[in-house]
Amino acid sequence: MFFASDNASAVPPQVMAALNAANEGFAMPYGRDPIMTQVRDRIREIFEAPEAAVYLVATGTAANSLALATLCEPWSATFCHSAAHIQMDECGAPEFYGSGKLVLVEGAHGKIDPVALDAAIRTASGGGVHGVQPAALSLTNVTEAGTVYSPAEVARLCAIAKAQGLACHMDGARFANALVAAGCSPAEMTWKAGIDVLSFGGTKNGLMGVEAVVLFDPQKAWEFELRRKRGAHLFSKHRYLSAQMQGYLQDDLWLDLAARANAAAARLADGLAAAGATLLHPVDANMIFATLPRAAHERAQAAGAVYYPMAETPDGVTARLVCSWSTTEADVDAFLGALAAPSA
Amino acid sequence: MFFASDNASAVPPQVMAALNAANEGFAMPYGRDPIMTQVRDRIREIFEAPEAAVYLVATGTAANSLALATLCEPWSATFCHSAAHIQMDECGAPEFYGSGKLVLVEGAHGKIDPVALDAAIRTASGGGVHGVQPAALSLTNVTEAGTVYSPAEVARLCAIAKAQGLACHMDGARFANALVAAGCSPAEMTWKAGIDVLSFGGTKNGLMGVEAVVLFDPQKAWEFELRRKRGAHLFSKHRYLSAQMQGYLQDDLWLDLAARANAAAARLADGLAAAGATLLHPVDANMIFATLPRAAHERAQAAGAVYYPMAETPDGVTARLVCSWSTTEADVDAFLGALAAPSA
Amino acid sequence: MFFASDNASAVPPQVMAALNAANEGFAMPYGRDPIMTQVRDRIREIFEAPEAAVYLVATGTAANSLALATLCEPWSATFCHSAAHIQMDECGAPEFYGSGKLVLVEGAHGKIDPVALDAAIRTASGGGVHGVQPAALSLTNVTEAGTVYSPAEVARLCAIAKAQGLACHMDGARFANALVAAGCSPAEMTWKAGIDVLSFGGTKNGLMGVEAVVLFDPQKAWEFELRRKRGAHLFSKHRYLSAQMQGYLQDDLWLDLAARANAAAARLADGLAAAGATLLHPVDANMIFATLPRAAHERAQAAGAVYYPMAETPDGVTARLVCSWSTTEADVDAFLGALAAPSA
Amino acid sequence: MFFASDNASAVPPQVMAALNAANEGFAMPYGRDPIMTQVRDRIREIFEAPEAAVYLVATGTAANSLALATLCEPWSATFCHSAAHIQMDECGAPEFYGSGKLVLVEGAHGKIDPVALDAAIRTASGGGVHGVQPAALSLTNVTEAGTVYSPAEVARLCAIAKAQGLACHMDGARFANALVAAGCSPAEMTWKAGIDVLSFGGTKNGLMGVEAVVLFDPQKAWEFELRRKRGAHLFSKHRYLSAQMQGYLQDDLWLDLAARANAAAARLADGLAAAGATLLHPVDANMIFATLPRAAHERAQAAGAVYYPMAETPDGVTARLVCSWSTTEADVDAFLGALAAPSA
Repeated sequence: MFFASDNASAVPPQVMAALNAANEGFAMPYGRDPIMTQVRDRIREIFEAPEAAVYLVATGTAANSLALATLCEPWSATFCHSAAHIQMDECGAPEFYGSGKLVLVEGAHGKIDPVALDAAIRTASGGGVHGVQPAALSLTNVTEAGTVYSPAEVARLCAIAKAQGLACHMDGARFANALVAAGCSPAEMTWKAGIDVLSFGGTKNGLMGVEAVVLFDPQKAWEFELRRKRGAHLFSKHRYLSAQMQGYLQDDLWLDLAARANAAAARLADGLAAAGATLLHPVDANMIFATLPRAAHERAQAAGAVYYPMAETPDGVTARLVCSWSTTEADVDAFLGALAAPSA
Repeated sequence: MFFASDNASAVPPQVMAALNAANEGFAMPYGRDPIMTQVRDRIREIFEAPEAAVYLVATGTAANSLALATLCEPWSATFCHSAAHIQMDECGAPEFYGSGKLVLVEGAHGKIDPVALDAAIRTASGGGVHGVQPAALSLTNVTEAGTVYSPAEVARLCAIAKAQGLACHMDGARFANALVAAGCSPAEMTWKAGIDVLSFGGTKNGLMGVEAVVLFDPQKAWEFELRRKRGAHLFSKHRYLSAQMQGYLQDDLWLDLAARANAAAARLADGLAAAGATLLHPVDANMIFATLPRAAHERAQAAGAVYYPMAETPDGVTARLVCSWSTTEADVDAFLGALAAPSA
Repeated sequence: MFFASDNASAVPPQVMAALNAANEGFAMPYGRDPIMTQVRDRIREIFEAPEAAVYLVATGTAANSLALATLCEPWSATFCHSAAHIQMDECGAPEFYGSGKLVLVEGAHGKIDPVALDAAIRTASGGGVHGVQPAALSLTNVTEAGTVYSPAEVARLCAIAKAQGLACHMDGARFANALVAAGCSPAEMTWKAGIDVLSFGGTKNGLMGVEAVVLFDPQKAWEFELRRKRGAHLFSKHRYLSAQMQGYLQDDLWLDLAARANAAAARLADGLAAAGATLLHPVDANMIFATLPRAAHERAQAAGAVYYPMAETPDGVTARLVCSWSTTEADVDAFLGALAAPSA
Repeated sequence: MFFASDNASAVPPQVMAALNAANEGFAMPYGRDPIMTQVRDRIREIFEAPEAAVYLVATGTAANSLALATLCEPWSATFCHSAAHIQMDECGAPEFYGSGKLVLVEGAHGKIDPVALDAAIRTASGGGVHGVQPAALSLTNVTEAGTVYSPAEVARLCAIAKAQGLACHMDGARFANALVAAGCSPAEMTWKAGIDVLSFGGTKNGLMGVEAVVLFDPQKAWEFELRRKRGAHLFSKHRYLSAQMQGYLQDDLWLDLAARANAAAARLADGLAAAGATLLHPVDANMIFATLPRAAHERAQAAGAVYYPMAETPDGVTARLVCSWSTTEADVDAFLGALAAPSA
């Protein structure tokens, strides 16, 4: 009954197998390993982007910060939702790496409101040399509220940004979960909708710590490589990143893992609603934000359930619950059972 | 016959076993995994430093940059050998992370000359507000020339630095190799000799990508944690770093691995000398810098040997050859055989 | 009829006289000129702060950025009003100099709301290593809305900040105008109310480009000097900054200049209200935000009046009008005359 | 008898007159003042560079740091003489502003040796992603040793740099002194010889604190403006910088001032040689490095002469002596008289 975060889950056996298979003899370091060539080709194929530059790093914060930095100057403005991971959870890493000032835009259920985005960019564009210069939009999909932007929603926001000269980044720490939920192709969710650079997450969906950065326009590839090295994110024994990603992509494992997590969350959301909990946001993927009746919360805690409480009132506890690829139906049902009032 | 770098070697089975063992169920993220507690305790025990703060990162550049940054301000001067990895091979990462300006000091065989160090610090201390402010000394052990500072040599350099108010860092990317070569205790090589912060390497000696940073004085522990996060080097699924380090330290595996690499290099050095090559530096650990007769070099290349040529003359080729834990006697002998002139 | 900004005004004759007087022979550079000694002593006396460290720089942005940087780390959170100059008008200079992330707090009429401040600090304090760390509060007095914090209001906000461990900065680009409006002593407006570091503006109130930074706690004085030099803000021919500040402070000239500007603004505000304009904020000092009837605006424009239009509707034009020490009653009356409808 | 530095001199009356003349009424801020238009045109005319972008800042360190930053990325290598002001006297400002790592090149008498430069660039170019990337050459003219690069010497060094893709900067803190010494045109000394960006000093040659940055290729003009603002070096009351530069350029005052300083230094150098002092470097402009006999030094000190002692031996004192526009023949002769042994 562990729903605290998908980043606490283990690694699926297929990935461990790939890792073990790669552990043979010597391999050229720093990304020149042959597995990386396969991974690069596979990602280009998956995204229908034969020219894309593809790199691996080990943390989502590194992926986001380096990706954004290639789109920005230190005096740039990067627009994101006020709840975005890059704003709330990265201790200023984007600013450190050079994405400039983050300008926060609001919107319901974790999604940037298009009208608010347009207004924010216009306002920021009027400052001349005195203000930071609008340069990038960063969307998070799955959002921090557990909702999923459809390709059409992504395209609308990107169009607003691009009309004013901005580049577009997607923080896809849970990209697979978003994709499975939206039922579209990777290309439709990204470059066809206007995304220039994608943080393509692997860690939350089953890897030890591997994220790809996909630059659909490879023009800044060399700059990215220098930024990665300078940020100390270039692995000498790179094959162990490559191998994980190889295992992840093989036979659509990445989509299967995300589908499992999403299904578990859907089952959990249904059960929560039935148990009298209030859902704060639509449950589009693998994250749930719900207010649990206090008594139910206390029963769950007593039963050893782990999740992330965000706020408390006398009546209820608002919590975040996340399902991972390894969350089983039995886990969900056990938790729901613990929540439920004992029958008289 | 692969002698290009120890960072191209595989991972020993004990470490893979530890990794597989850790891959069970959920684990708290961001370093709160129980294996990390064991690792921390073990490192404190190994270094006889019960108060030390211990952290894991995935690259040596991250370890060095974060370690130095906790000792420096952006307007600091950090003194290092002109051949130091932090100067030559990290694309400015130390400056990016905040270690200030690197001031280069010379010295034979990759070791900082004490008299030159003293003079350099004195010169830099005289600039008032116009110059960068001396703050740290960084020693590399094993040095970039393959030599090893003895504890007494470390102590002498640290004493010079400390007398002028500097803190002392050791880049121990090959710390195990240095330790085995010097035949002293970890404490003698570090804090007993004046080292304040150690980059304790694991990757070159057998891990996938794990380095510990050991702050013998834990006063800046929280600052280090913030710098690590801000640099995007805090792993969510931290247990996979912990597990590797756990396997590495268990039953003195780390020392065994280094002893193997050093022994292979000694065998190789002996053979090279016998084959007419000139050694440029004493071979104290697992790296060899040698000038090979041109004919021998060409025979080796033809036989498929891999190593790093650094300079060429009509007569010879100067090269770096590195042995790793996985270099076998057979590898060495095959290479020496390839080098040798065919008997008539 | 120039009301665009006080930073477009000339320099009063007393300051020019001081500058001419200083232009004799050689003077020690970099702040070691004897006039600076007098200026330092005089500022300490004015602020009843005999231990304060006092420095001069040439721009308000430099004063703010360097002042904040001494209170912060790059991973800090600095709390300010959403309209603050450091957020809107400095192109990210505070972040460049190291004040961390600016966290925006709202409040009516340009003043930070105490309840909102308290909540914002509490929220930001809960992020652990993942979020930026609350470190400083920055208040602007005169605010960007032309209002003035009373010493009691400053004290209340500083108390909230200090209770949670933050240091307090005041952006006093228009400090003299605020002081004259509040009718209190410089000490009451600053350190007695909890301010740790003050940007003590001179430029907008009559100098060519001189601002003092007053560190009421001199502990970080040397760090400030290094930051100033590293930021390229240490003047070699420092006497010309010192001389301007000397002239500014002599015989309370600075207070006279501010009183003139405030009086002109009060006269202007009265006239605007009489002319049918709507004042958006209380006019406490020398800045006015008003919506002018469109016809009046057009008459003023036709007559050559200069001010800063911020927004337009079919009915009216919202504008900022600023009076300086050199704005005369005749200027104000001429402008009001131009605004007025021609009598039939 | 003040020879400590030219940055301790006063401002010539023509510049004070220009300043007083500019102090009338309101002027548009931030470089939009009409005097700046004249200054820009005049500098373009002087340099035969009608397209050049021209900006004013208040310190030489700002000019150098901002100029270099427009040519570099944070991961760049900038090549300069080991004695360069940007390396020794700016507390790391170039690195702070983004010029990357400074790579030091040697050469006699303060001039970069062409062969050493070529070798240094070649070495640095071989590091791939692991090393900083060669991007800029920075020459100082007048050098830190008081010598002057001829246009041909500048051209030779720039050609080496440009052949390897580097851009070229000249730190012309004493540009006028160099120009007068070389007897060439401003264009010949700069863009015709390969210089892309010039720090065109005014302060040491008579202004209060004004330096121009001349970008011969205006492509990065807007980037420069943003960097200047973000660095807090954009003056609101910009007319006071413009006016000084206007006075400086009018009727070739700048060249007259430099000629006076150079002539004074030549007279001083002759006298020193006659008095038994040893000159360390050719005296090309207004700076002298000499070893004075100890007894002469002591007599000069006793007579109140001020200069900068750099090293002492039992026999002599090595010192730097600088003449400024305001150094008179009488000053020089008085000093030489003080040095001389009293006749028996």
